[in-house]
Amino acid sequence: MPSTSLSFASTREHRAFLETQSGLPAGFRVGSARITFEPAEVCGTATMNLALLALAKPTPSFALKLTRNAFPGAPIVIGKRRLSAPRLGAVVVNTKISNVCAPGGVESAERVCAAAARALSLRPDEVLPSSTGVIGWQLPVDAMVEAMPVAVASMQATSVLPAAEAIMTTDLYPKVRRAEVGAGSLVGIAKGAGMIEPCLATMLVFLLTDLDLARDGLREALDEAVETSFNRISVDSDTSTSDTVVLLASGERPTRSTDEFRKALSRVCRDLAEDIVRNGEGVHHVIRVHVTGAPDRATAQGVGKAVVNSPLFQCAVNGNDPNVGRLLCAVGKYACSVSRPLDPARFSIRMGGELILENGLMRLDRRLEERLAEHLRSAQLYASLPPADGMTFRPPIAYPPHERSVEVEVDLRSGQESAEVLGADRSHEYITENADYRS
Amino acid sequence: MPSTSLSFASTREHRAFLETQSGLPAGFRVGSARITFEPAEVCGTATMNLALLALAKPTPSFALKLTRNAFPGAPIVIGKRRLSAPRLGAVVVNTKISNVCAPGGVESAERVCAAAARALSLRPDEVLPSSTGVIGWQLPVDAMVEAMPVAVASMQATSVLPAAEAIMTTDLYPKVRRAEVGAGSLVGIAKGAGMIEPCLATMLVFLLTDLDLARDGLREALDEAVETSFNRISVDSDTSTSDTVVLLASGERPTRSTDEFRKALSRVCRDLAEDIVRNGEGVHHVIRVHVTGAPDRATAQGVGKAVVNSPLFQCAVNGNDPNVGRLLCAVGKYACSVSRPLDPARFSIRMGGELILENGLMRLDRRLEERLAEHLRSAQLYASLPPADGMTFRPPIAYPPHERSVEVEVDLRSGQESAEVLGADRSHEYITENADYRS
Repeated sequence: MPSTSLSFASTREHRAFLETQSGLPAGFRVGSARITFEPAEVCGTATMNLALLALAKPTPSFALKLTRNAFPGAPIVIGKRRLSAPRLGAVVVNTKISNVCAPGGVESAERVCAAAARALSLRPDEVLPSSTGVIGWQLPVDAMVEAMPVAVASMQATSVLPAAEAIMTTDLYPKVRRAEVGAGSLVGIAKGAGMIEPCLATMLVFLLTDLDLARDGLREALDEAVETSFNRISVDSDTSTSDTVVLLASGERPTRSTDEFRKALSRVCRDLAEDIVRNGEGVHHVIRVHVTGAPDRATAQGVGKAVVNSPLFQCAVNGNDPNVGRLLCAVGKYACSVSRPLDPARFSIRMGGELILENGLMRLDRRLEERLAEHLRSAQLYASLPPADGMTFRPPIAYPPHERSVEVEVDLRSGQESAEVLGADRSHEYITENADYRS
Repeated sequence: MPSTSLSFASTREHRAFLETQSGLPAGFRVGSARITFEPAEVCGTATMNLALLALAKPTPSFALKLTRNAFPGAPIVIGKRRLSAPRLGAVVVNTKISNVCAPGGVESAERVCAAAARALSLRPDEVLPSSTGVIGWQLPVDAMVEAMPVAVASMQATSVLPAAEAIMTTDLYPKVRRAEVGAGSLVGIAKGAGMIEPCLATMLVFLLTDLDLARDGLREALDEAVETSFNRISVDSDTSTSDTVVLLASGERPTRSTDEFRKALSRVCRDLAEDIVRNGEGVHHVIRVHVTGAPDRATAQGVGKAVVNSPLFQCAVNGNDPNVGRLLCAVGKYACSVSRPLDPARFSIRMGGELILENGLMRLDRRLEERLAEHLRSAQLYASLPPADGMTFRPPIAYPPHERSVEVEVDLRSGQESAEVLGADRSHEYITENADYRS
């Protein structure tokens, strides 16, 4: 279930909401710089953002979740080492190049960390690198080292919003969510719009809290929160080589209840995960699949992912076309692929609250068709505009007008487990964005 | 490896090729009829084709491969029963409605079979039904029964081409492939452009031969041929609820060598499978992934499918953009999901014959980038034209101009098994086709 039900009529209204979310917890500062450089791999120039998230003093209380893709980026390799470091004092994030499988990648990332450490009076192993962008390209290390003092000079302790903006790539808008927890607070920012089907962790997410929490409890809480948020979403079924979630606790405020913190963390993670899908590349509709009656959690999640990753169902939803046969096809494909066989005659499927399949039979008629089409239209974020040049589709708005979704319910009637999975439709804007992303 | 390397400059040239392929083997007749009706489920009228493929006398030598989707259509349910029938005399095929999970679906299909049996002087269980189209809708049985004599009256024993045309739905052109085998011949026709990732069998494929072959040998030969053809392709990763491959042998010509027949069958199946991908919905580029050095066949096939089903790689190929990092991302996602871990540091990846990854490192430079882009351009079937209404993309040609593909090679260096998988890019034409397929 979504924890908020917001709606916005303009970028300005959405911006005002983001500002209410962006107050930095005590003990943190953020800053950024912009770099123009010439990549070694292609002709021409490119632009990169560098963001710094720093603690007033290094903390032993930090938690990381990293991608399971078999080709992890250099920042992921270094992140795994940092997990056993005594303290973390800052994160240095860059866009444009993800530093994955590039020659000398780990050494380049360590040089960037060392430069940030010098500028912030930290030890190099107290700095975590984080990168997003093109795979296979090499970081422009010299330009990044040179820009470090500029980023440090821009640091402030008031708002996380400049950092949320600096880490954006194909995102249309920044994503910021917060929770007040006892005497302190928790704020999270996220980037990511494509190559989104996290496997263990996800895209780039930074969660900052001023509460006083021990490392072990913090890591357990993050495991739990990630499992039911970022691991339950997909924009395009591609698992990034750079997915990263970082949680830092400055410890400047006393913790009254770790339970209260865990709940707040789960809620902020779920809201950010939904923000990521809602702002996914070319997304016109968010699709929420609630699977119940599954024999185990993996099956519940698998059925949900199968539905949101079906290209034909994605396209039907995009066209507000209640072609629910494609929903059934997706469930049926998954059900035939699992080792423990499921009996489709027991399944029931609903969309927009309307029963469309029961006891193995579909129940379609002209009035139901009209109600389903209305449900799809009500969940639409925007309609495509014919492009000026005839080919290049661009989203007409850069804010989320509402938080409604296409609601799908699948009851397998084969057990007690359930899962909620979020995905999205497939549009001309996605094709435009990705048929020539790098140029 | 493709068995042909054809090129065509016009629909007329392609048509001339199809005619060379279309001669019917001895002992077969085909015919068709067109039906206009009002579906019960939506407002308005719809059109359906009915095709008949009949034997001069019923044969015990037939083989069927049927979808593994957990929601099989009524024709699949009946097809499983027919497998143990003594003889088959005809197949009745309809488009527009796939008769899947519709109330009374099996009874409706049996009524259509009975009508065909009456018109052809067969027993009802000697007729196999086959349907493709919208899931969940009910067949217009009365209109189909009424049209049966029209279809029978149109039957002829010369060319399979009218049947290949009658079974088309979103296909841009008919697909016909043949082989001469000793004293006889084998001809195959196929339909299917979307909802294509066969699981065991595929779409609708009808293979007719006049050779004298026993049922058991025929079924073994079909198992073998399907495994390395239709089970190795994907247009959009959606496994249809109606996939069907039928092989009928009239026995009118003596068989000199079953080995020769098996080879011919495998070749015709591979050629038809490639035809289906090349004419897949919105396909601009066929992508051929050759995976070697795998520990087992499932892994080889899994890696190939992961590459061709990656939306981001599909979009990059569509834009002739050599964003090969997305290829690596797709391989890395699959490699992290298998139970037997693979070591990505051993992999090598090539595109268009160019080495792009070795020993865990990418090798990108500006000249390689240009060669990769040239390879993508050379495999392009057509470029999108800006649509007249600003939104509705239609393929500008309805024939395959050439048989070139984007050639990807992945060597896992972890064993002896290999597999070749065919897939395609993702385009604006696919979105247009599927955002409102039914209307």
